[in-house]
Amino acid sequence: MGTSSRFEQYLERVRPKIDAALDRLLPPASREPRTLHRAMRYSVFAGGKRLRPALCLLACESVSGRSAPALTAAAALEMIHTFSLVHDDLPGMDDDDLRRGRPTNHKVFGEGMAILAGDALLSLAFETLSRANLRRAADPCALLETVCTATGPEGMIGGQAMDLLFEGRKVPLRSVYAMHRRKTGALIHGSLRLGAQIGAASAAQLRAFRDYGERVGLAFQIGDDLLNVRSSRRALGKATGSDRARGKATVPGRVGADRAEREAARILREAAAIAPRLGGRAEEFESLTEFLLHRTH
Amino acid sequence: MGTSSRFEQYLERVRPKIDAALDRLLPPASREPRTLHRAMRYSVFAGGKRLRPALCLLACESVSGRSAPALTAAAALEMIHTFSLVHDDLPGMDDDDLRRGRPTNHKVFGEGMAILAGDALLSLAFETLSRANLRRAADPCALLETVCTATGPEGMIGGQAMDLLFEGRKVPLRSVYAMHRRKTGALIHGSLRLGAQIGAASAAQLRAFRDYGERVGLAFQIGDDLLNVRSSRRALGKATGSDRARGKATVPGRVGADRAEREAARILREAAAIAPRLGGRAEEFESLTEFLLHRTH
Repeated sequence: MGTSSRFEQYLERVRPKIDAALDRLLPPASREPRTLHRAMRYSVFAGGKRLRPALCLLACESVSGRSAPALTAAAALEMIHTFSLVHDDLPGMDDDDLRRGRPTNHKVFGEGMAILAGDALLSLAFETLSRANLRRAADPCALLETVCTATGPEGMIGGQAMDLLFEGRKVPLRSVYAMHRRKTGALIHGSLRLGAQIGAASAAQLRAFRDYGERVGLAFQIGDDLLNVRSSRRALGKATGSDRARGKATVPGRVGADRAEREAARILREAAAIAPRLGGRAEEFESLTEFLLHRTH
Repeated sequence: MGTSSRFEQYLERVRPKIDAALDRLLPPASREPRTLHRAMRYSVFAGGKRLRPALCLLACESVSGRSAPALTAAAALEMIHTFSLVHDDLPGMDDDDLRRGRPTNHKVFGEGMAILAGDALLSLAFETLSRANLRRAADPCALLETVCTATGPEGMIGGQAMDLLFEGRKVPLRSVYAMHRRKTGALIHGSLRLGAQIGAASAAQLRAFRDYGERVGLAFQIGDDLLNVRSSRRALGKATGSDRARGKATVPGRVGADRAEREAARILREAAAIAPRLGGRAEEFESLTEFLLHRTH
């Protein structure tokens, strides 16, 4: 097609703002302990898509007409996402050497420093949220609860534990879905919910964001796992075929790539049908489902 | 002597309350993913002294006459402390097999699960604080900021990074102190400050808790390092002499055990002199300095 979708245009437009906020919020690399701060910055500025912060900004804008009040909170979400990638890549977890085409954090800074850089990013995310001066916009405790629930044992970290425990086991498809819902869906839904809460969304809108976010999160993870099967290492910037080698529980692994693709498309159609209930930016939310259907990296 | 100090009596009195709060706040071991929840509980209920939560309760009681409003927040501090121990013991960090006389978390649950159990404890601590219903007692954002600052790159995690970076290097004594101030002092001071804030302490009281907490934290770390030199593995429940073998930067390592002991005693006398400014429980705070002077484990 050549032209980018509305959602991609939105991503392009907000990415510089998100990057500037992250640069402002992360400790400078010149401050001690410098190696820790360099390790944190190395993985945060490694070319991520900024999907989660963009979803937070878009949700806020969609319900309130403005995204600016959500910018600091959005940056905190990217810190949490990066923390999870750094720890996921560790030798004790997925043992990956390459991420986004560059050596993983522990390959550059050593295992101990990578563990601490992840820990520091998680802690700094909560510090950022508690300092975000969101008192006027919304109940700060409710916002923190959204992020903590999405991150903790009920959310992303619990999902990563399931992922680890499922390795090499033939678990039922519904368990694979339950794992994806936590591992990927929880933070994607949490990002939308956080932005919507900052924008003072109604209870009905928050429910719509939940229904939409759960589906988008699930389809995103299935898409990721399909890329792991089909893409080349060059296009993806990380090892491919590794899920199968490691006996990871994935939807393509359980039902085959073709059926997994049809399943993702079905889930994304459901999400697209919910988009009109998500406020003024419904078109961008619909466009995201198209983007995920055709993504190649 | 046979009789325990006032501070030890206080520890004995509050420990069951802290343990009951932790048991209530941690996910049950019967809930999925069970291995994650078992790993979290394994290290939380491994016989810790509960020093940090006790300091939080004592500070709250000292300024307000009541400790109950600080109980949930106090439990969150123990989750953060436990998270730091689990990650500290990992092969990529200090690589310890034994902690409090039992195999370390990764020895029982594997490295990946230990990383995740630590991550989950940190996240759950912030979730607990955001749900602690402290809205009436104090500004919840100010409380979270206290804990995050004590934990993150400026606090404990930054100190652990310095600890790692100093290994095998001959750093100046003032750098060892700067590292201890973050690695141990920050969370001990943060625990006192959190309790004092929940008890609505005055600005002058908060300054006194800072002056006292920094000294107690420093003396505690010097004491820990002295035990590593002098104690037996049996008495301590973990490996001794390991700091020296690993080239750790410690005060005893830099100036010798005898001078380090005199230094700790001097710092604790300074702390004892501040105790009368800490409110109604000044005697317990003075007693803590005696306790730290003579501790054997």
